[in-house]
Amino acid sequence: MASINLNVARWTALPLGVVYGLWHSNSLKKSAVKERAAIKYRHKEELINKAKAAYYAPKKIHIEGASQIGIEVRKDADFSTWYTQVLKRSEMLEYYEEVSGCYIIRPLAYNIWHEIQSFFDSAIKKLGVEDTYFPMFVSQRQLEREKNHIEGFAPEVAWVTKAGSSDMENPIAIRPTSETVMYPYFSKWIRTHRDLPLKLNQWCNVVRWEFKKPQPFIRTREFLWQEGHTAHFTKEEADTEVRQILELYRQVYEDLLAVPVIKGVKSEKEKFAGGLYTTTIEGFIPTTGRGIQAATSHCLGQNFAKMFDIVVEDPSALASSEGKEAKKLHVWQNSWGLTTRSIGVMVMIHGDDKGLVLPPRVASIQVIVIPCGLTVKTSEEEKKRVEEKINDVVKELNSVGIKAKSDLRDTYTPGYKFNHWELRGVPLRLEIGPRDLTNNQTLSVRRDNGVKEPVPLDKLTTCVSDILNTIQKDMFERAKKVYDEHVKVIQKWDEFVPALDGKNFVLVPWCEQEHCEDKIKEKSSRRQPEDDKAPSMGAKSLCIPFEQPTEPAIVPGETKCISCDAFAKRYALFGRSY
Amino acid sequence: MASINLNVARWTALPLGVVYGLWHSNSLKKSAVKERAAIKYRHKEELINKAKAAYYAPKKIHIEGASQIGIEVRKDADFSTWYTQVLKRSEMLEYYEEVSGCYIIRPLAYNIWHEIQSFFDSAIKKLGVEDTYFPMFVSQRQLEREKNHIEGFAPEVAWVTKAGSSDMENPIAIRPTSETVMYPYFSKWIRTHRDLPLKLNQWCNVVRWEFKKPQPFIRTREFLWQEGHTAHFTKEEADTEVRQILELYRQVYEDLLAVPVIKGVKSEKEKFAGGLYTTTIEGFIPTTGRGIQAATSHCLGQNFAKMFDIVVEDPSALASSEGKEAKKLHVWQNSWGLTTRSIGVMVMIHGDDKGLVLPPRVASIQVIVIPCGLTVKTSEEEKKRVEEKINDVVKELNSVGIKAKSDLRDTYTPGYKFNHWELRGVPLRLEIGPRDLTNNQTLSVRRDNGVKEPVPLDKLTTCVSDILNTIQKDMFERAKKVYDEHVKVIQKWDEFVPALDGKNFVLVPWCEQEHCEDKIKEKSSRRQPEDDKAPSMGAKSLCIPFEQPTEPAIVPGETKCISCDAFAKRYALFGRSY
Repeated sequence: MASINLNVARWTALPLGVVYGLWHSNSLKKSAVKERAAIKYRHKEELINKAKAAYYAPKKIHIEGASQIGIEVRKDADFSTWYTQVLKRSEMLEYYEEVSGCYIIRPLAYNIWHEIQSFFDSAIKKLGVEDTYFPMFVSQRQLEREKNHIEGFAPEVAWVTKAGSSDMENPIAIRPTSETVMYPYFSKWIRTHRDLPLKLNQWCNVVRWEFKKPQPFIRTREFLWQEGHTAHFTKEEADTEVRQILELYRQVYEDLLAVPVIKGVKSEKEKFAGGLYTTTIEGFIPTTGRGIQAATSHCLGQNFAKMFDIVVEDPSALASSEGKEAKKLHVWQNSWGLTTRSIGVMVMIHGDDKGLVLPPRVASIQVIVIPCGLTVKTSEEEKKRVEEKINDVVKELNSVGIKAKSDLRDTYTPGYKFNHWELRGVPLRLEIGPRDLTNNQTLSVRRDNGVKEPVPLDKLTTCVSDILNTIQKDMFERAKKVYDEHVKVIQKWDEFVPALDGKNFVLVPWCEQEHCEDKIKEKSSRRQPEDDKAPSMGAKSLCIPFEQPTEPAIVPGETKCISCDAFAKRYALFGRSY
Repeated sequence: MASINLNVARWTALPLGVVYGLWHSNSLKKSAVKERAAIKYRHKEELINKAKAAYYAPKKIHIEGASQIGIEVRKDADFSTWYTQVLKRSEMLEYYEEVSGCYIIRPLAYNIWHEIQSFFDSAIKKLGVEDTYFPMFVSQRQLEREKNHIEGFAPEVAWVTKAGSSDMENPIAIRPTSETVMYPYFSKWIRTHRDLPLKLNQWCNVVRWEFKKPQPFIRTREFLWQEGHTAHFTKEEADTEVRQILELYRQVYEDLLAVPVIKGVKSEKEKFAGGLYTTTIEGFIPTTGRGIQAATSHCLGQNFAKMFDIVVEDPSALASSEGKEAKKLHVWQNSWGLTTRSIGVMVMIHGDDKGLVLPPRVASIQVIVIPCGLTVKTSEEEKKRVEEKINDVVKELNSVGIKAKSDLRDTYTPGYKFNHWELRGVPLRLEIGPRDLTNNQTLSVRRDNGVKEPVPLDKLTTCVSDILNTIQKDMFERAKKVYDEHVKVIQKWDEFVPALDGKNFVLVPWCEQEHCEDKIKEKSSRRQPEDDKAPSMGAKSLCIPFEQPTEPAIVPGETKCISCDAFAKRYALFGRSY
């Protein structure tokens, strides 16, 4: 029999069938079953029958069921099992057994993606970006047109070689990203500077057949994202947009998902394959001390424009040209992407030992209202009054746009329901019982910190709205504080690896040379955090933050690189990462 | 030199560069260029320079340019060229040269898809359907679990066999539809009748590698769609939902796209592979006299539930069962889908010789406001007043939710702009010139029928709103009238083929036997409409309409099948189809 580790508080919240199962397997006394059932049912016969029926119901009899209502491992004890359990048991995600590295995004998670889409899509529409959809297939010839680009993606490309029972003449790749799919048409559509800027975006799936260990949302072989592709007349316009988009990405993470990030630019080694420079927002998972690239906004420069012949005539030369062909100018391009990885980062940062913790702004249920304090002595009439009040409360909250729902199921105890909705991360619980009716109030319980507070029913909507705002703010600020505490500004190599081993990022003076970055990775990979089985955990440069430390500031030609003999250019953020 | 077929009205609307090109190639006199340019520019030198510059601008010099501003062929003369030109030149779609049968959906078309999504998605949410995303990959083993199903789809499945440079152990299919992807998880998630109904939907891409001639939107190898998959406890619930969804599909076509459809049920031969029965809405393309399946809502019965072991215990048996395993019941399932084909159907039905005609409800620009009547004599001040008024008009229309835009480009003539926006199907044009300012009015011109009507500016929003509603209604009613006229109720086989050849559907008493359907197809494929090169154009059963003719009604055991010796069961709609 699987080990059972239940305190009274937990097993009284178990469903009847599971309790009966525990008794049946000699883990609980029969009296305990009756006691448990008495909470819900008046007649013992009825109860025993119900418990038995629940016990014998297929697929619910196993003892494993006892653990399936909650999370079995502590987040800080076994992070990777914890992560998987939270995702599966909250019904955010299901493992797809047929194809490794692919996962099923269930409604609870998809709704978060939908919130992100709504926010980001309306923001980019205001920047003049338009919707499009390009095919997901790309020929080998096309894919290989930009050399650095294909070098970056080739090892991960999935190839279609057969249709029906026929072999294809030429294999066709599934897009890992759509630069090479789109840019031949940019060349076709862009003819004069009046066609600029061209700003397109698509929400779609992409495939990167990675051979590293997959992890739900974080590293998956198929994932959902948006990819923006734009062309500009000047570098200045392209630069401006790169930053505008990065700022929107920051807002998605910080304002919606309550996940703090650091903005910066990638090193040459880490930039997008084929691009000019890559800006990024970098997140931090405190439990593992590892960094995670949250979203990137690339300036591609004129590199792809040259490969794909995306040119406009020089308008300044036009007026004076008499019959001569006008000078051609290559356009400046950007591409930028945000993926479903964002959902995983949010779970890793905010989830706790009870399960998911959702920031109110992305929760599809923000408030769950649960009847409490109903005992065997409660009259049917009183029970009805409680339920009516609960319906009123839900209606009132909905009327001001708060996503509230009730849980009036009579087959479960309040305790079970608490666990059920805590596991699913609902930000706020309201409990309403007969006594609350008398006092015209409800007890609110915050998911993020467990704080309980009575809410007068005549100030319901303002109070609940305030609490939700506070939760959103507190979640971000707590995470931000933790992040800040784990960024160590250091000047000496000796402190580098110990800081990493203490689950920190380091912010260090750096020469920005690629061979130096390789060396740092090598030197820092000697030791590994115990809870991580990744083969190489050397530190890499995460970004060169836009916001640089000023104490002490880098003195050009004086401050040395943390690792080599060259002079430092700027502070760079290094860390172990996903 | 390509043949030039321009009347004065058309060439005066040409861009300067093209006019200069015509002159340069001795097709027009120099004076004509000056005359044309004088419409726009006061100084002849400036004009000659501009015309030259435009002429020498790369990619714009070719004579083909003359035709690229409009549609070159008549819809009724060469439908397939017309269709392609409308899509490409209105910038709805681009041919994807890399992979045959794939197309690029450009913003003008994607916006229509977005409108359809918004409408349909919010409607199904009200039915309790939730968003999900399943992987697009499915293993061969899984795909083949339902025998009839795979027989229907196998010839069109695209297979991934390679990742990076490695061959995969087992080839993986790209979903042609997701029954076999999803249902193993339905089996996992559905345990008791309380888990029902389960209602999931995803918006995604699917791949069907058809070898028939592809046609943009109508038959493409990758397309976008939504696929709903639901499970119910009773057949009644499943039946009800099948009809609810079909009704929503009717609304998408008739109320949004102004495309009339006929609701009915498919014959056994034409139903979804592996399902119990298929309901459908069938559209009609008058120009070719061919039918087109617009959307389908399938009841899968318990067939997939049996293959994938999707069961719940019998709740009625539970109470009485004492220790025995409860009886298992298979769930009832539906699946239903609507694709980007809908956009193509709308274009085919409403487009005309000037290009696209968009119903106001799906047009991303509903009203285009164009300055008119500005001549060389118009003062700068007056010009400015016109532009200011136009901006006010746009602002006022936007403020009440009407999607209005102005075209103030000063490099193009009003005539050019008329063509430009007519080609793109904008439902209503407002012209404003100096005289309109005086009269405090604007001239409205409907795209669908060319009707001009002055609109008093002090009743702007109500008038424009009324006109848009009228356009929407008229477009549907005109199309509906044409459809109705082309459905011939006939009783004798002798009339069958002549009716088809007259570009009609026929509604005939039918025995509903599969071999009879095959025979009808064979007998009706002797003759082909001239404008169609499809290899086999025999008629097939499109649906058995829910609304049956009553004059004469079918008399069971008396009315004979149109084609064979058996008795007719119901009237069936037959036609040549896409």
